[in-house]
Amino acid sequence: MITKVPRLAAGLAEELIRIVGADAVITDPARLMVYESDGLTAYRCPPRAAVLPRDGDETARVVRAIAQAGVPFVARGSGTGLSGGALAVDGAVVVCTARMNRILELDLHNRRARVQPGVVNAHLTAATRPHGLYYAPDPSSQSACTIGGNVAENSGGPHCLKYGVTSRYIRGLDVVLPDGSRVYLGDRGFDTGELDLAGLFVGSEGCFGIAVEVDVELLPLPQATHTLLGIFERLEDAGRAVTAIIAHGLLPAALEIIDQATIRAVEESIFAAGYPTDAAAALVVEFDGIEAGLEAEAAHAEAACLECGAREVRRATSAEARAALWKGRKKAFGAMGRIAPDLLVQDATVPRTQLPDVLAKIAGIGERYDLRVANVFHAGDGNLHPNILFDRRDETEMERVERASKEIMRICVEAGGTITGEHGVGLDKRDYMALIHSEDTLRAMESVRRVFDPRGVCNPGKVLPEWIRGADPAIAGAPGAGPADAGQAEVGTDGTRKAVPAGATA
Amino acid sequence: MITKVPRLAAGLAEELIRIVGADAVITDPARLMVYESDGLTAYRCPPRAAVLPRDGDETARVVRAIAQAGVPFVARGSGTGLSGGALAVDGAVVVCTARMNRILELDLHNRRARVQPGVVNAHLTAATRPHGLYYAPDPSSQSACTIGGNVAENSGGPHCLKYGVTSRYIRGLDVVLPDGSRVYLGDRGFDTGELDLAGLFVGSEGCFGIAVEVDVELLPLPQATHTLLGIFERLEDAGRAVTAIIAHGLLPAALEIIDQATIRAVEESIFAAGYPTDAAAALVVEFDGIEAGLEAEAAHAEAACLECGAREVRRATSAEARAALWKGRKKAFGAMGRIAPDLLVQDATVPRTQLPDVLAKIAGIGERYDLRVANVFHAGDGNLHPNILFDRRDETEMERVERASKEIMRICVEAGGTITGEHGVGLDKRDYMALIHSEDTLRAMESVRRVFDPRGVCNPGKVLPEWIRGADPAIAGAPGAGPADAGQAEVGTDGTRKAVPAGATA
Repeated sequence: MITKVPRLAAGLAEELIRIVGADAVITDPARLMVYESDGLTAYRCPPRAAVLPRDGDETARVVRAIAQAGVPFVARGSGTGLSGGALAVDGAVVVCTARMNRILELDLHNRRARVQPGVVNAHLTAATRPHGLYYAPDPSSQSACTIGGNVAENSGGPHCLKYGVTSRYIRGLDVVLPDGSRVYLGDRGFDTGELDLAGLFVGSEGCFGIAVEVDVELLPLPQATHTLLGIFERLEDAGRAVTAIIAHGLLPAALEIIDQATIRAVEESIFAAGYPTDAAAALVVEFDGIEAGLEAEAAHAEAACLECGAREVRRATSAEARAALWKGRKKAFGAMGRIAPDLLVQDATVPRTQLPDVLAKIAGIGERYDLRVANVFHAGDGNLHPNILFDRRDETEMERVERASKEIMRICVEAGGTITGEHGVGLDKRDYMALIHSEDTLRAMESVRRVFDPRGVCNPGKVLPEWIRGADPAIAGAPGAGPADAGQAEVGTDGTRKAVPAGATA
Repeated sequence: MITKVPRLAAGLAEELIRIVGADAVITDPARLMVYESDGLTAYRCPPRAAVLPRDGDETARVVRAIAQAGVPFVARGSGTGLSGGALAVDGAVVVCTARMNRILELDLHNRRARVQPGVVNAHLTAATRPHGLYYAPDPSSQSACTIGGNVAENSGGPHCLKYGVTSRYIRGLDVVLPDGSRVYLGDRGFDTGELDLAGLFVGSEGCFGIAVEVDVELLPLPQATHTLLGIFERLEDAGRAVTAIIAHGLLPAALEIIDQATIRAVEESIFAAGYPTDAAAALVVEFDGIEAGLEAEAAHAEAACLECGAREVRRATSAEARAALWKGRKKAFGAMGRIAPDLLVQDATVPRTQLPDVLAKIAGIGERYDLRVANVFHAGDGNLHPNILFDRRDETEMERVERASKEIMRICVEAGGTITGEHGVGLDKRDYMALIHSEDTLRAMESVRRVFDPRGVCNPGKVLPEWIRGADPAIAGAPGAGPADAGQAEVGTDGTRKAVPAGATA
């Protein structure tokens, strides 16, 4: 079944072609299939068209033309997002940043770069590494995801425990607003006390406009890196080792746990990394910085692992040896893809101290719904990624996956956690927002969104639950529609154009 | 001359007394003098009244009563701000947080605290130190300034080079909005990808409401601290040492320079710290963290200082010896107060590499206007504090101070810098905003401000230039009033109630 999508009006199509050229306006349904979902393939929704401008000026003209025609639009980088944030609901046009992939300026002295939004995350580090610099945020998708997408999602990565998420590295943004006008947000690259509109834009999931040039801060490459792999017979022991390491005052660059289900998936795949398959958990600990002191930090961490019951700790300092220790973590998602046709990567964050308890509850949910759940997580941040393995062709399994997924989210919130760690809210979790925010707070968010996008044309249907849409423009004073169906609402609300969960169409 | 301030209407006064009690509503002009200026004493403006609620509930009721009476208000902590941000212009009522000074919760496991806004910065660290924790942001006024004021100004401090400014430590805010309603902003303490309203509130300089409870993150106390003092015969050499230390990949906790004028002021005062008065500059370098490696880092920094021409480097690790090295820096402002009746502390930030050039230009401005300028600065951040010493009773000198101050700001902006580092914009620098932001960006800020405060009653007259007030509520599309008098406008616009520069009244 192909969902019915409104066609692009001839006048608008001509106008877009005038701006970017015929090769950069895609309307052929077959070619548009590329854009019908992001990394969360459970949702699919074909866009009305896709347009690929080359720079900020073309983007501004494209957005102005689309806005004047009253058509919604959504910006898209590489489409690696995991919350359905780039889904073209409401017959939206996709504005794809793929051709805006140039590094515009490199200021080595002040460690700054100005880049177009379509620059791939790993390419920026590749281009700056010869100068001794790199771009710190490293989402697992970094070889494909773009800086613009990272800005939209405020992306993290394994090393954000020490280095922080994207917002820490964004020094300014040249933005095309939803009406096609252009504005610079930021304080010229200084972390000052001013009203932080750039900080507000980062993490706004594409709802406030399109960043067409991004000023980022680079870091000097660490002089040295030490990596450890702790092997544990009990998952709780690995969790306790994380707490012990941090309690010791150490700040590792990364603290990653993978559980037995994940270890087995990796070891049974072509990515076999030499992790023992009878182990309950593996913990990757990494330290970086100047050489002096790293050895001592690694020794402290090794001792902490052994005290918490690790049966073995491996250490590595050379690039190859380190890559071998990381392999089981880095290839986890790829390996899971080989043992099940479908994978739902959940994303939630809990207080670090709640990890053992929450993990036990997640295991219980998996058993109760008869589902395979494998855990990979940024343990230092308390950021969990329970992965539910399934086959979408099995309709009853699909249903169990959805129910288990909701339950996992609920227990994370009950443990004092929140509904996302780094994947954003997007379409997927907008109805969970009422689990952690009051109606007043959601109304405040909607009001701020409307300042940027009064007509609601910019990435509609994302982040906020549908019932909050169109709330009073001032935060306070006016009663909004109640959260009558919070946590229950179906995706999409407007009949023919609603987003269709892929499970229902296949 | 006492500026004419409207009186508090009897009905409102009674209502306020009903809420907080008669002892917590101040209307006596003599008692109100305490509230007529903040740390930037060049501006003075008596409030209509001052109210001191005890908690969030009382604050909400107080704000609701004031808002319903159509009277503006301004929140105030200890009044240590340096940009006139807490000035009660437009006949505002001061809502003082002095009685909201309790630490409400201490979660040692997850290193979080929930505090009232009137808690003094240093008191929070004093209360958590026995548990091995501390609150990282350390403005120079930390023994007096409050967490609520720090939130409003997004305060920094000497150690924000390594530890970052206030926004990094705020995990959530319970806020009373300008109409008296209450909302929680934040993501329950996780650095996730959500729409960051708490981050927007931090640094909004009291224009978005009053934070009545603040969830902060604490850090473990560093195991050890090493401090160095480099003595230089040329200020540029100290600047080069800063660059060399950072280029080496070291991240000191602090990198502070004081110049010869400041050294002499200190050494001539009762705070004499033993810095040589013939030195052109002193550089304080501090490292902290776990003991292992600190010695090596300090040795690297010492070598960098010597290579850049330091004639002497002193080192200290014990608490007393470290305090002695810091003394000249910590007592700089106090010492200057003793050699001139008045002091204008300027605050600007420039790219680190521009420091030598900008410092030379500031010296030139001082000579040209025949003014004494002493520099103290957070060198690692490029955050300058040129201090102009003067006597406000000398009217021609006052005028030269104002002109020199504007010129200093202009050369900082021309060097690619910005108009504030950590003191905020407040009343003092609102007309400089047009130097660094386009009209569109200022309009965007005004629009966001109006979402929180549609009636413009919450800390009116601050941050944004007067001519942007009342711009179109949506960011884009509508033409605003032009910046006709950008950088020139006088303070205050509404006759009898305008803020009066103290120089003109004394």
